[in-house]
Amino acid sequence: MQNRILVKECASHVAKSVTVAGWLHRLRNFSKFGFALLRDRSGIVQIVLTAEHCQLFQGLQNETIFSATGVVVQKPSRSGAIEYEIQADTIQIISPVTHQLPIEINKPEGIDANLDTILDNRVVSVRAPQIRAIFRVQAALLKGYRTYMDAQGFTECMFPILAGAASEGGSEFFKLDYFGRTATLTQSAQLYKQIMMAVYEGVYGISYSFRAEKFSTSRHLTEFNQLEFELGFIESQEELLIHAERAIRSMLRMVEEECKEELNTLQTTLPLLGENAFPRIDLSEALQIYKDDTGIDETNEPDLSPAAERWLSTEWAPQHHGTSFVFVTGWPEIKRPFYALPDPTRPGYTVTFDLIGNGSELASGGLRISNYEQQIERIIKKGLDPSDFNDYTMLHKYGIPPEGGFGLGLQRLTQNILKLSNIKEATLFPRDVQRLCP
Amino acid sequence: MQNRILVKECASHVAKSVTVAGWLHRLRNFSKFGFALLRDRSGIVQIVLTAEHCQLFQGLQNETIFSATGVVVQKPSRSGAIEYEIQADTIQIISPVTHQLPIEINKPEGIDANLDTILDNRVVSVRAPQIRAIFRVQAALLKGYRTYMDAQGFTECMFPILAGAASEGGSEFFKLDYFGRTATLTQSAQLYKQIMMAVYEGVYGISYSFRAEKFSTSRHLTEFNQLEFELGFIESQEELLIHAERAIRSMLRMVEEECKEELNTLQTTLPLLGENAFPRIDLSEALQIYKDDTGIDETNEPDLSPAAERWLSTEWAPQHHGTSFVFVTGWPEIKRPFYALPDPTRPGYTVTFDLIGNGSELASGGLRISNYEQQIERIIKKGLDPSDFNDYTMLHKYGIPPEGGFGLGLQRLTQNILKLSNIKEATLFPRDVQRLCP
Repeated sequence: MQNRILVKECASHVAKSVTVAGWLHRLRNFSKFGFALLRDRSGIVQIVLTAEHCQLFQGLQNETIFSATGVVVQKPSRSGAIEYEIQADTIQIISPVTHQLPIEINKPEGIDANLDTILDNRVVSVRAPQIRAIFRVQAALLKGYRTYMDAQGFTECMFPILAGAASEGGSEFFKLDYFGRTATLTQSAQLYKQIMMAVYEGVYGISYSFRAEKFSTSRHLTEFNQLEFELGFIESQEELLIHAERAIRSMLRMVEEECKEELNTLQTTLPLLGENAFPRIDLSEALQIYKDDTGIDETNEPDLSPAAERWLSTEWAPQHHGTSFVFVTGWPEIKRPFYALPDPTRPGYTVTFDLIGNGSELASGGLRISNYEQQIERIIKKGLDPSDFNDYTMLHKYGIPPEGGFGLGLQRLTQNILKLSNIKEATLFPRDVQRLCP
Repeated sequence: MQNRILVKECASHVAKSVTVAGWLHRLRNFSKFGFALLRDRSGIVQIVLTAEHCQLFQGLQNETIFSATGVVVQKPSRSGAIEYEIQADTIQIISPVTHQLPIEINKPEGIDANLDTILDNRVVSVRAPQIRAIFRVQAALLKGYRTYMDAQGFTECMFPILAGAASEGGSEFFKLDYFGRTATLTQSAQLYKQIMMAVYEGVYGISYSFRAEKFSTSRHLTEFNQLEFELGFIESQEELLIHAERAIRSMLRMVEEECKEELNTLQTTLPLLGENAFPRIDLSEALQIYKDDTGIDETNEPDLSPAAERWLSTEWAPQHHGTSFVFVTGWPEIKRPFYALPDPTRPGYTVTFDLIGNGSELASGGLRISNYEQQIERIIKKGLDPSDFNDYTMLHKYGIPPEGGFGLGLQRLTQNILKLSNIKEATLFPRDVQRLCP
């Protein structure tokens, strides 16, 4: 729109006449005068209305699109912060809303409804300041990830969604009729990122993963995104940890730079990155110190319990290393996929890691088997049939270097750093057992 | 790898001992000496081998991973260009390949096989210099697009893949069993990008589109990506054209900057952008000048034929406007979707455009209907049932500003600017009626 300024630009237009346009966030109509809160992409400003303006809003609902022209004045604020309002000369209704909203999105404390209602009404609810802030943060995470990867000279790849029928069992695959055959939706970009690693050495991308799991919990989605990474010609897992740590730092720095107001709206602060390198700790050692400190003995477990993940990243790491992040290395073979590199110095274990941050697991990765015969052997040892993996092992047959990589769940990371109680809150259009719309 | 340098860094290491590592691109073994071409992500270098080194390669095939340590020497080249080679002191075999390759990828003129064979062996064929160059260009296009959109302050969104059953007919939808219900794969991000436009005003993203079409042509894919854009509070289509043009310029500039060698490998140059704005021409006028110039009368058609698209963008626009790109505006309602804004000044026509570039259509977009009643009316007039579009029209019911947007096919653009004869050549892992792997 010609001459339109954004709400956040009011500060530099005091005593001048401006035009703003946006959504009617809230209306107080005292008939002789009134106040309309106008919301645009940059913020919310109060418009002072005359009786005549008030009439224009007769019968109209919140979310009506309108523009206001008038002089910007500085407004006394109770909190002491400087605020602005616009004394309207002209109001123009651009897109009238005559139906009452199914959900109120203009309360300072957020939407007062359960998550299902919020998601049923995603079209409207995502406009609430407390929700729109979440996905600005998510966009900044994506940007921070790519900024880091691009700066390393790594190459972005687009991964496919449709794939051939999964012969390796797979009740958790979504299947579809594909011109008389069965196709599946990819569960992982593993094959594709390794193929591309063998071309560009360092590759990254944003993948979609699909899981036909009937779980309906605060941690499950049937469709989600992963920040993927794969790197060839590496000699130790440490090179992966360095990239994972720097990528996390780049992402959180981007959020800090670009989302100050959003963090403010969400009344949250980002997890503690700290100045030193994230600590690296072996799984067995992690379980030992968890036992020593809390008395909970899980030293015989092949895994970290959610409680142990929380303790490690919110108590142990902050206290001893000044950070909320910790790499846990040395995972047993039974907990890792068939392509994880066995640790030659420690039978039964793999050269793999999880990144635990701010209470939960964020990323998983490690070195991969790069030798063809070793990969075939591993598949057999896992009780699988190598002929089901021909596409995958073709890669090893025709030469890949020592390599590794990791995957980092986008929605899970968003949920984690913003301390959201359900992963669906961190997903624009979540899909679960019940939900496919909008 | 410690101390490893990339092939392209040899130029700055003349007379020094270096280590390089990569794939065996080609071997000439004269048993008393030999030459190995080593390929890494940055290029190809010749390694001079002793008899002893030659023995190490006995029984090994191309694509074997190895490293070479030795002194870099400047090498006389027939063409006059400066080249380098490495006189190996040490050769180390890192991942041996003992199986013969299914396809030769090391010929200077490219792979000598038909496209199906190339795609059947994608794991290996994508390593050929002439193919790996294509997807470096594609990565640069993505980066150029995001760079432009980020610089405008627009917000990136992740669009969903799984959606509810398509009630609006749709034999071209892929359907799948979703916990006893029917789900579909999204054909378009239209709904989602409009929802998000109503939050952030300017939004963009990379979507996946799926089409269950049985066509097996050089232009069809069942899965492809679109560069999406949507913008609110605009008064004319011209604002969209400006963004589309600038986005194209940003993308091609990024390719030019980052892919000099790749363009060289592909022996191609980018289409002519020109210094002036891309011309804007009404469809009816375009058909008239096409007739005047070529004698081919398609003035009664509601569309541009492929031949007319070619003529417009490779003859008319270069001659008259010094560019290979042209915006064609003013499309009839019957050729545009139900959400296209009818032109109030010209019954039967819409405020929409196609961007034709370098021989074919690249992008399609225009203004959208933002009024609820008008949208319902249009759906009915198109012979559709408004109740099938409740998710979509909920958007209009609860307030959207005047707005518009466009979509630009990523694989189609890649094919177009690199003059590839089949769109599958511009797709990393193409899916069509026959193909689901790898």
